[in-house]
Amino acid sequence: MRPTGRLHLGHYLGVIKNWLKLQEEHQCKFFIADWHALTNKYKETDSLKENIRQMIIDWLSCGIDPEKATLFIQSGVKEHAELSLLFSMITPKSWLELNPSYKDLKFNLYYQYLRDFLAGKQIKIIQTPPPQPYEEALEKSTGKQKSKIFEDYLREAFHKAFYNQKGIDFKGFKDVLIKFGIQKKIAQEVVKNLEEGDVGKDIDTVGFLAYPVLQAADILIYKADTVPVGEDQLPHIELTREIARRFNNLYEPVFPEPQALLTEEAKLPGIDGRKMSKSYNNAIYLSDDEETVNSKVLQMKTDPQRVRKTDPGNPEVCIVFDYHTIFTDSQTVSEINAKCRNAEIGCVECKKILAESLNNFLQPIRERRKEIEADIHRYEKIFEEGTEKARAVASETMSEVRKAMKLWQF
Amino acid sequence: MRPTGRLHLGHYLGVIKNWLKLQEEHQCKFFIADWHALTNKYKETDSLKENIRQMIIDWLSCGIDPEKATLFIQSGVKEHAELSLLFSMITPKSWLELNPSYKDLKFNLYYQYLRDFLAGKQIKIIQTPPPQPYEEALEKSTGKQKSKIFEDYLREAFHKAFYNQKGIDFKGFKDVLIKFGIQKKIAQEVVKNLEEGDVGKDIDTVGFLAYPVLQAADILIYKADTVPVGEDQLPHIELTREIARRFNNLYEPVFPEPQALLTEEAKLPGIDGRKMSKSYNNAIYLSDDEETVNSKVLQMKTDPQRVRKTDPGNPEVCIVFDYHTIFTDSQTVSEINAKCRNAEIGCVECKKILAESLNNFLQPIRERRKEIEADIHRYEKIFEEGTEKARAVASETMSEVRKAMKLWQF
Ligand code: SF4
Ligand code: SF4
Repeated sequence: MRPTGRLHLGHYLGVIKNWLKLQEEHQCKFFIADWHALTNKYKETDSLKENIRQMIIDWLSCGIDPEKATLFIQSGVKEHAELSLLFSMITPKSWLELNPSYKDLKFNLYYQYLRDFLAGKQIKIIQTPPPQPYEEALEKSTGKQKSKIFEDYLREAFHKAFYNQKGIDFKGFKDVLIKFGIQKKIAQEVVKNLEEGDVGKDIDTVGFLAYPVLQAADILIYKADTVPVGEDQLPHIELTREIARRFNNLYEPVFPEPQALLTEEAKLPGIDGRKMSKSYNNAIYLSDDEETVNSKVLQMKTDPQRVRKTDPGNPEVCIVFDYHTIFTDSQTVSEINAKCRNAEIGCVECKKILAESLNNFLQPIRERRKEIEADIHRYEKIFEEGTEKARAVASETMSEVRKAMKLWQF
Repeated sequence: MRPTGRLHLGHYLGVIKNWLKLQEEHQCKFFIADWHALTNKYKETDSLKENIRQMIIDWLSCGIDPEKATLFIQSGVKEHAELSLLFSMITPKSWLELNPSYKDLKFNLYYQYLRDFLAGKQIKIIQTPPPQPYEEALEKSTGKQKSKIFEDYLREAFHKAFYNQKGIDFKGFKDVLIKFGIQKKIAQEVVKNLEEGDVGKDIDTVGFLAYPVLQAADILIYKADTVPVGEDQLPHIELTREIARRFNNLYEPVFPEPQALLTEEAKLPGIDGRKMSKSYNNAIYLSDDEETVNSKVLQMKTDPQRVRKTDPGNPEVCIVFDYHTIFTDSQTVSEINAKCRNAEIGCVECKKILAESLNNFLQPIRERRKEIEADIHRYEKIFEEGTEKARAVASETMSEVRKAMKLWQF
């Protein structure tokens, strides 16, 4: 897990809950991927140490147990870097460039650039009517809406230009821009800049390209047979398997081909109904105190059709109810369901019940958190000892790797 | 130095001779870059250990001195891999892709593919007369020559198509192919394959792209102020400086910006007159015995105009004479110069003198070689101890690096 900040309920349900089960059944290694945090955040390392500390506290306070699993910090096991380097030698660059998540990032980078560029030139995006079906939608709309519709079209056109090409060739896209009524000269400038690759230079680093190789090393160095991941990580696990196969074929069979253990995505939205995320400022954190939880619950969006307490509500479209189904006992949940539909409970009361449920859930975590914070060095030490344990295993694998590759044996 | 095989006289004059001087004047670190040997030879590691051993023997027998310089093996200092990983996070991919040596390799790969593809389709390269000035040259020539001229043109056209583009866009090249009389369908297939990037997949690895980053780590981890390199390595030293600057700006000023110390290229040709190289099978090795040297000298090309002993020769166009100027005492050299021009010395006699000079030069090296070979483990141990020494320095720099980047301090 990348140490990007405090964990929220979405992380708990999506990852930690699963780990708590896994640590009982398997020999697990959980690590704080601080090197990975650098792949896109290398300019902002001021908070890295504090983020690692918060992650230690979050994990332990949730019950992730150093007696059951090896807990460690990636950057303490240099062997990951060594194996990553060796893997990089046998991994065709095209394997990474064709990786969907890499292509998506590039698309977003480039599109962002395109928008900013056009805005900087004070080019209004709406200049000529776009073709069907946008034209129709456009007729029915005004002002801001219009601009939104046009932008959607621009994005789609760019998307097509981008993904139709294996490489990055924007020649076709120039015509699209011109069709949009953008001056030929400016369209040429856009395309030239896009082609010359200065766009997104700061984020499109070697490390960003190669991070799936580091990830493969993270996994294979422990000869892991199973990796719990979300769906978006599946291409990376497939790449890990490919690298393992390639290594085994080129040298000797050192690595198993690990299986992905798909974690169901947490369906819990943020308090505004969007995906729960730090950047939307809509998350409830494991470290939030009672008051904060109460206040966040009070801000939660409810059924938008229910204006007055006397209006019957629909729990199916209410975020508060989504939370209830997870954190409140099932009897109370059915009561709320019925009462809401019959306007027998007000949203404020309903929210108070939820706040209580959440606080009940968080209370034991908070208590452990307090204990841990009071003695943080001891717990940091546990992670450092875990790092040594991991390192012993990693270093054994590296001996095998060096032998298989016929490198010098020190 | 990459351990790719035994050293020859070209290596001695181009590198080792320079090192012998440097080790007297500076605090030097010389290392066997075995990880770098993997960037293009990862499939052929069977001889890697033996190559390292030969390199140890070659260096020591020439007088490279572990008392004066730190001698080590790269793969024993994991810190190089760690720093390389950290540098990869801050290095824009475009810095590497625009690196001339990377582009040149890509060009060669692609051109090779193109030739093989056309040959595979049994497309004769000559189908239509190429434009001026080839047309003229073509008229005056026949058969093989014709084919050569046409190939030159193809290469040049492809070169233009390749280097005119920042990215890899072969659209323009398709037209060139069609102009050559190659079927449109086939031209499209060629371009499609080139664009889709399967070409050269095995060599165009992440490690190959990123090796200048590893090289920057190799240099900067010792805070080197000076790096002795050949001209072809200058872009890599410039990249090293750029990475140092970027690191210092992003975090704290940890690294100096090293200067390149340009080594003059050895002008010594191989025995056939081409560049001395293992692949041309025209090299005289430091490990060649007397008999081998004698026989190689006898095979040397001399002034091609001198057919009979009674013909006067021209030492300026004679490889044997090139060698004399380096390995024979200056008085004998002037005598040979005069006698050759007056047909007073035969080439066989002249070569005998050279063989003697070379054997004189190689004799002390051979003697030390014998001593070292007889006790090879002791000398391997010296390199392993050097590796530990290097590691101590590297590990100190890494502490500084981790502190500057605000990473976890173990
Ligand atoms: S009563 Fe509860 S479930 Fe019904 S709309 Fe209000 S908050 Fe949502
Ligand atoms: S005599 Fe010596 S220098 Fe003259 S052509 Fe023969 S080999 Fe060369």
